[in-house]
Amino acid sequence: MAVPPPARPRCLLPLSLGLFQGALLLFFALFVTYDEPSAQVEDASLAASQLCGTFPLFQDIQVMVVVGLGLLLAFLPRYGLSVLTHNFLLLNFSTQWALVLQGLLHHFHHGRVHLDLRNLLAAEFAAVTVLISVGAVLGRTSPCQLLVVATCEVPIYLASEWTIVTCLGVLDVGGTITIHVFSCYFGLGVSKALFGAARRPVHPKETTTPRSDLLSLVGMLILWVFWPSFVAVLCQPGDAQHRAVLNTFLAMSASAVTTVVASSLLERDSKLSAGHLQNGCLAGGVAIGVVADMAVPPVAALALGSLSAVACVLGFKFLTPLLARKLVLQDQCGIHNLHGLPGILGAAASAVAILVASEDAS
Amino acid sequence: MAVPPPARPRCLLPLSLGLFQGALLLFFALFVTYDEPSAQVEDASLAASQLCGTFPLFQDIQVMVVVGLGLLLAFLPRYGLSVLTHNFLLLNFSTQWALVLQGLLHHFHHGRVHLDLRNLLAAEFAAVTVLISVGAVLGRTSPCQLLVVATCEVPIYLASEWTIVTCLGVLDVGGTITIHVFSCYFGLGVSKALFGAARRPVHPKETTTPRSDLLSLVGMLILWVFWPSFVAVLCQPGDAQHRAVLNTFLAMSASAVTTVVASSLLERDSKLSAGHLQNGCLAGGVAIGVVADMAVPPVAALALGSLSAVACVLGFKFLTPLLARKLVLQDQCGIHNLHGLPGILGAAASAVAILVASEDAS
Amino acid sequence: MAVPPPARPRCLLPLSLGLFQGALLLFFALFVTYDEPSAQVEDASLAASQLCGTFPLFQDIQVMVVVGLGLLLAFLPRYGLSVLTHNFLLLNFSTQWALVLQGLLHHFHHGRVHLDLRNLLAAEFAAVTVLISVGAVLGRTSPCQLLVVATCEVPIYLASEWTIVTCLGVLDVGGTITIHVFSCYFGLGVSKALFGAARRPVHPKETTTPRSDLLSLVGMLILWVFWPSFVAVLCQPGDAQHRAVLNTFLAMSASAVTTVVASSLLERDSKLSAGHLQNGCLAGGVAIGVVADMAVPPVAALALGSLSAVACVLGFKFLTPLLARKLVLQDQCGIHNLHGLPGILGAAASAVAILVASEDAS
Repeated sequence: MAVPPPARPRCLLPLSLGLFQGALLLFFALFVTYDEPSAQVEDASLAASQLCGTFPLFQDIQVMVVVGLGLLLAFLPRYGLSVLTHNFLLLNFSTQWALVLQGLLHHFHHGRVHLDLRNLLAAEFAAVTVLISVGAVLGRTSPCQLLVVATCEVPIYLASEWTIVTCLGVLDVGGTITIHVFSCYFGLGVSKALFGAARRPVHPKETTTPRSDLLSLVGMLILWVFWPSFVAVLCQPGDAQHRAVLNTFLAMSASAVTTVVASSLLERDSKLSAGHLQNGCLAGGVAIGVVADMAVPPVAALALGSLSAVACVLGFKFLTPLLARKLVLQDQCGIHNLHGLPGILGAAASAVAILVASEDAS
Repeated sequence: MAVPPPARPRCLLPLSLGLFQGALLLFFALFVTYDEPSAQVEDASLAASQLCGTFPLFQDIQVMVVVGLGLLLAFLPRYGLSVLTHNFLLLNFSTQWALVLQGLLHHFHHGRVHLDLRNLLAAEFAAVTVLISVGAVLGRTSPCQLLVVATCEVPIYLASEWTIVTCLGVLDVGGTITIHVFSCYFGLGVSKALFGAARRPVHPKETTTPRSDLLSLVGMLILWVFWPSFVAVLCQPGDAQHRAVLNTFLAMSASAVTTVVASSLLERDSKLSAGHLQNGCLAGGVAIGVVADMAVPPVAALALGSLSAVACVLGFKFLTPLLARKLVLQDQCGIHNLHGLPGILGAAASAVAILVASEDAS
Repeated sequence: MAVPPPARPRCLLPLSLGLFQGALLLFFALFVTYDEPSAQVEDASLAASQLCGTFPLFQDIQVMVVVGLGLLLAFLPRYGLSVLTHNFLLLNFSTQWALVLQGLLHHFHHGRVHLDLRNLLAAEFAAVTVLISVGAVLGRTSPCQLLVVATCEVPIYLASEWTIVTCLGVLDVGGTITIHVFSCYFGLGVSKALFGAARRPVHPKETTTPRSDLLSLVGMLILWVFWPSFVAVLCQPGDAQHRAVLNTFLAMSASAVTTVVASSLLERDSKLSAGHLQNGCLAGGVAIGVVADMAVPPVAALALGSLSAVACVLGFKFLTPLLARKLVLQDQCGIHNLHGLPGILGAAASAVAILVASEDAS
């Protein structure tokens, strides 16, 4: 892989990973089991139809995270292979780690831990936060550092998700606040902690080429296509899920068109910036998550998608250079523009939606 | 992007797109709403199972159009990035424009417009016609020209689809006539209108490289894999849909083998032409659409797939040069060979199938 | 295509393929028909829900075989285009050939042959064995030789599958023994038969480049994501299918982490080998197939995944050079390490699982 190993004992990565894998085996042997087989025929038929409803969406999300996100981050020409590999390793490590932590939490409550597809989904969402956060320090960290970040972030994510969803009762099916906003600010904190006040000049290897931009664009398109599955997978089947799919589609379609408008207006010669496209088109999906299954009118989804695309493009143009200059904050992939700003917009939109709904009801 | 902006005010593209997006917001705010939530429990369960049946196919079609078609058209080495971007922008613009036009038609009849996944599918099919048509003028047009083409084509498509399906009562689940044949001749008309009698020499940038051929081949494979979803999505669930999937698979498999046969026989040294492969293997899918859900025997699907692959390869070898010479007709991607000839074959096959069925019945 | 045509009549490939296609048409015309339409409404609703459960998995498997496997094998820089094309041609030829042979077997028993999605799946599994086997002789054989291999392998596979599953009653939902172990040793036999004792030096074209490794890695990721669909598609819907999905996911996740551990420990400078990653991460999926739907505890899936990844990496490091030196056995893609060793591990694990289960029961 292209990233040079840091000046540490060369066996640190395999040894720590190997120890982790051994501990995982031990934990699973002691505590984890599958659900009891459904005793009654009706239950079995229900289980089959639930699997049939959830499994295709689960596979879509796997494609997004493994292939789509990996390719999206492969925009640095020399790091393509490393980025795909590190993304894949981090995903697997974080999912397993999240399964262990979830299991421990449950164990204290209910004895043995029962594993099903919903647990896997929840663990995968925890892994997604790690993958988003490390975007801020992409290509400047060793695999060991990435694993340390994952080890710290997963428990904090689980605690914060529990606080937000269970304690505060916030509705957030698409993970706008719990996943995107959280992982963005965690990632920026990691970047600040690792690089401190060191101003590092842009390395010549860090300019994109048409080929690496093409790969990254294909990654964006894969994420764009499957985003409705990501938002809808945890919704109530039926009307709410249907609405979540439609709202997400509308928001992402509006994002795509608005990104082209905003990027052409801001760039010289009306040329589109590949970086704007790769991020702006997805901003609508980030913002819509928190209101996707609510009974908002379709126009709200379109407006939210457009607004978040504008925020994302403006963020790349003005906010990222400003943060780098004033706060000496490095944000390699611009996660603040893709996950931070649209996430905050989405949270504000959900507050408005709930206020309007409660006024209507009163 | 690689396409140089034409000698027009540089803000034409963003301003017109921005205006369109604003008008869309206004239209959605005034007229569009979601279906009422299903009041009864049985309805809700029915809605959930419909979504579960349609949504995975919808996602497959999205992958085909966004990723597959984009990569298929990326066979010109320098234009890869532009082609993917323009394909994506046109798809979103045309889908939104088709939603507006469909909504207007409905509005005159039923008051408010109710949006659901079927509407999105219909709008996406309208967008597919635009994406096929612009294949004829690929890499020689500015984004603005492409948007003008889309603006004109979507209403004409909706009118022609209404005439063919609703007025004439033609059965065409896979869109062979309404989508493929229509968009092919529309695209050739656009090419003739834009370039007139100007014989443009082949630009050196317009020869493919092994790398661009590989990308295009991957695009073809994605389209090939998901084509059964495209044909089956609008079929009656159950036997008709099952038959549509099987027929499409058989036709496309026969196409693939026959393309290799035909291309090896026609090319020097028995070398396969990448262009033939990228198009011939899909010809069976174009042709089968119109008969896919009918009670035709499996051998008919195989024969139709083989015939259309032969027609497609022969078209590339003889018809395209002839049209370019005699009619000065430029067809950059060979849409006449992939969509026109197989579509006409499919239409003829459906006429035969209906004649045979009515004789059997009498 | 890059592979030079051998010193044979140049029309051999198209003529033999064309003859085959003609014979297929004749066979389908005489013997093959679709299932009778379901007469009763309840049957129709059942058929629709079966299709809705199986079709998305069928599409996933198609993506794996057509796109994922094609890209995985494209690790030789100059052969990328040929490998994708040959993989695609072989898949279609073998599927059709398997449909014919299956049909003949059924015909002798039941008169006319009824085609449905399950037949297609079974035929596709036969084709997968061919695609795995030819990995041993990748890039050193002409398309005609590959077709001869396919013609011989499909009937032997069907006979061996019938012996193992129907006669011996072995449970093997994921095809660990019937597909992976069988095709591995068949492929090694083909390699020995074709190249005999000729020691061929490694051709300079046969070293990978970062670009070809990237393509191959993307292929591996696609296979990794969709592997649970491959294993679960033939399971009983409900609990068994759910368990198969979970077990496969756990095994593959453990494989991925363990491959990184094993590869870093074995390679100089702790650098990961791209070849190890491309194969080791999939080894868990090969091994788990035979026990995936059994009531094994989750820890067994994890342990099996880890063990098979270690076996695969050790195989690449020590066994492949040993076999090449002692037995003059060429194994271009290392199919013995990816399909042979993990398959044997899986078979041993299934024997243990059944012994434990029968002891528990007694």
